[in-house]
Amino acid sequence: MAKQTPEAWMARAVELARRGLYTTDPNPRVGCVLVRNHRLVGEGFHERAGEPHAEVHALRQAGDAARGATAYVTLEPCSHQGRTGPCAVALIEAGVKAVVVAMADPNPAVAGRGIAMLREAGIDVEVGILEDQARALNPGFIMRMDHGRPFVRLKMAMSLDGRTAMRSGESQWITGAPARREVQRLRARSSAVLTGVESIIFDNSRLTVRPAQAELDEVELVAGRQPLRVVVDSQLRLPQAAACLREPGRTLVATCTGHDPERRERIEAAGAEVAVMPAAADGRVDLQALLRHLADVEQTNEVLLETGATLAGAMLDAGLVDEMQLFVAPTLLGGEARPLFQLAGIETMAQQRPLDILDIRAVGRDWRITARPR
Amino acid sequence: MAKQTPEAWMARAVELARRGLYTTDPNPRVGCVLVRNHRLVGEGFHERAGEPHAEVHALRQAGDAARGATAYVTLEPCSHQGRTGPCAVALIEAGVKAVVVAMADPNPAVAGRGIAMLREAGIDVEVGILEDQARALNPGFIMRMDHGRPFVRLKMAMSLDGRTAMRSGESQWITGAPARREVQRLRARSSAVLTGVESIIFDNSRLTVRPAQAELDEVELVAGRQPLRVVVDSQLRLPQAAACLREPGRTLVATCTGHDPERRERIEAAGAEVAVMPAAADGRVDLQALLRHLADVEQTNEVLLETGATLAGAMLDAGLVDEMQLFVAPTLLGGEARPLFQLAGIETMAQQRPLDILDIRAVGRDWRITARPR
Repeated sequence: MAKQTPEAWMARAVELARRGLYTTDPNPRVGCVLVRNHRLVGEGFHERAGEPHAEVHALRQAGDAARGATAYVTLEPCSHQGRTGPCAVALIEAGVKAVVVAMADPNPAVAGRGIAMLREAGIDVEVGILEDQARALNPGFIMRMDHGRPFVRLKMAMSLDGRTAMRSGESQWITGAPARREVQRLRARSSAVLTGVESIIFDNSRLTVRPAQAELDEVELVAGRQPLRVVVDSQLRLPQAAACLREPGRTLVATCTGHDPERRERIEAAGAEVAVMPAAADGRVDLQALLRHLADVEQTNEVLLETGATLAGAMLDAGLVDEMQLFVAPTLLGGEARPLFQLAGIETMAQQRPLDILDIRAVGRDWRITARPR
Repeated sequence: MAKQTPEAWMARAVELARRGLYTTDPNPRVGCVLVRNHRLVGEGFHERAGEPHAEVHALRQAGDAARGATAYVTLEPCSHQGRTGPCAVALIEAGVKAVVVAMADPNPAVAGRGIAMLREAGIDVEVGILEDQARALNPGFIMRMDHGRPFVRLKMAMSLDGRTAMRSGESQWITGAPARREVQRLRARSSAVLTGVESIIFDNSRLTVRPAQAELDEVELVAGRQPLRVVVDSQLRLPQAAACLREPGRTLVATCTGHDPERRERIEAAGAEVAVMPAAADGRVDLQALLRHLADVEQTNEVLLETGATLAGAMLDAGLVDEMQLFVAPTLLGGEARPLFQLAGIETMAQQRPLDILDIRAVGRDWRITARPR
């Protein structure tokens, strides 16, 4: 094998980490490569919470060949005794010579301590190779550690004239099967799917991952894990017959102080959990508090927001949308159809909400636009 | 020069024809290449109505070298004594050996007669090389000849959520300077710009080509020609102070039977021409009749429709839009802003209006979508 650059080895580690995209939750996706004399001697990735970290897989594969090797890891090796032993210790004991780390661990339980342990053991540590790519693996984990809330990805399916449904609420299907497959994959990588009770009432969505529809290689792994379904429902109007209540996985109904206790009992009897949030000034669930709750109590990394114009607009207005995935169908629904977003307080062009468009690509006959509020 | 295929020579002729994009109106854009012994001996394109056709330019350049040459022409050589002599005769007299034609002339005054003349003179004629590319040069001319109406290109500037203006009508500027430059170029290639009187009242657009803003090499040629401004104004509400009335070029106000004669006098006094169309069932200008009038009386090839949701929707509803150019700005204007299209009779998903998206590309910070009603 030709001599590789450190960036090339780290790119391999990032590629490995990506294999955990749908399965590591609530842990971060991490990959590791062990290299000695310009030869790959071991590699691994973190597959599932409770199972070994990437470094352990790579060290096991390398065996004695790990001695004197350089480890490329997409995230700082852990220093704490979690469900598996600290990886920094494992690397030291295996006798690696150098460790190249793409990014420090934002987890306050690690936060540089893993790197410090390695350096104290005389190991040469370099930090920052392919850091952007490594950060992109774990937007939710990083957001949760740095800001105490999940990363929120808003998904909308719309016509070219910016409409998401008929006036009646009818919307199945604006986009084609390939776009719906991509939405399944977005769900599969998310810790939670967030919606408003109106969307449940209108669409009766199941909000589940159907592994066959997602067309993922990791079907079995994915099948075992459903994202938490979170329904914003200030007045507890969730129908007991809602389809999502009969699906595998949990449904969490977020309501606020002052809700009707009888309705709460009925909803709990139907199989949902109820979480009581503070009410915002408008009397509805405080969205910021809800996201904090999801991060702190549910260890939610990535949230997929799948909802209508009102809740989507409120999340945008509150500055709580980190990324938008708009699936645009080549069709017109007309000026009477439902709008994409209800946004507060836009009366003049000066008040418009600029976005950065990161990517536009074809998905079947539809187009997928990735954007970010500026 | 290496030996070229007939397609390569015809591609050169198409490229030449394109140089007349902004200037040949109401004539078609045509290019011609003369080749002898695999060498280019003459080339030309039609530049302006009243001036020589492409073949004449190429023959002049070739001189005696035209004898025994093959002519590649993007459109069938004309057979009729127009403002310049018939090109078929010129080719015969110059002694060309063969003529390769991309497409037959849809003009009923020619319609195969040019090809027949050449064949009768013993010249070998081949038809259909790069026909699609040749047709794309002249969508308006072909539509006018084949169907008696112009080709209608709808241009809209919109936010990502499908909005064209604030509720107040404020819309300057949704898109950036590069997108506005593209709009200038679309105007420059059009025979006419079509709008509704509401757009004039709200935006007071001049609807002119500003050659400097269009950033065209052919500045001088373009400067001499302004597209006809056509304002649909059933009740003759055009303000006498409208900016477009003070610009070079003509403004044609399309009204319908039953208009107020005093208003007509005021509008004519302000410098506009008035054309009286039949009224449609809704009492407004019959759009089909207006397009027929533009084709028959004004020799209009390409119309650029620049207007609001009502007239744009009515044109779509009537099946009179051939191409859409949507300039999408990376911004949100919210659910209270003005919609893209008011379309009649869409109540269910089954009534949606499917489009074919032909192209999406970046234009500065905006995106340009080319689509076609299916």
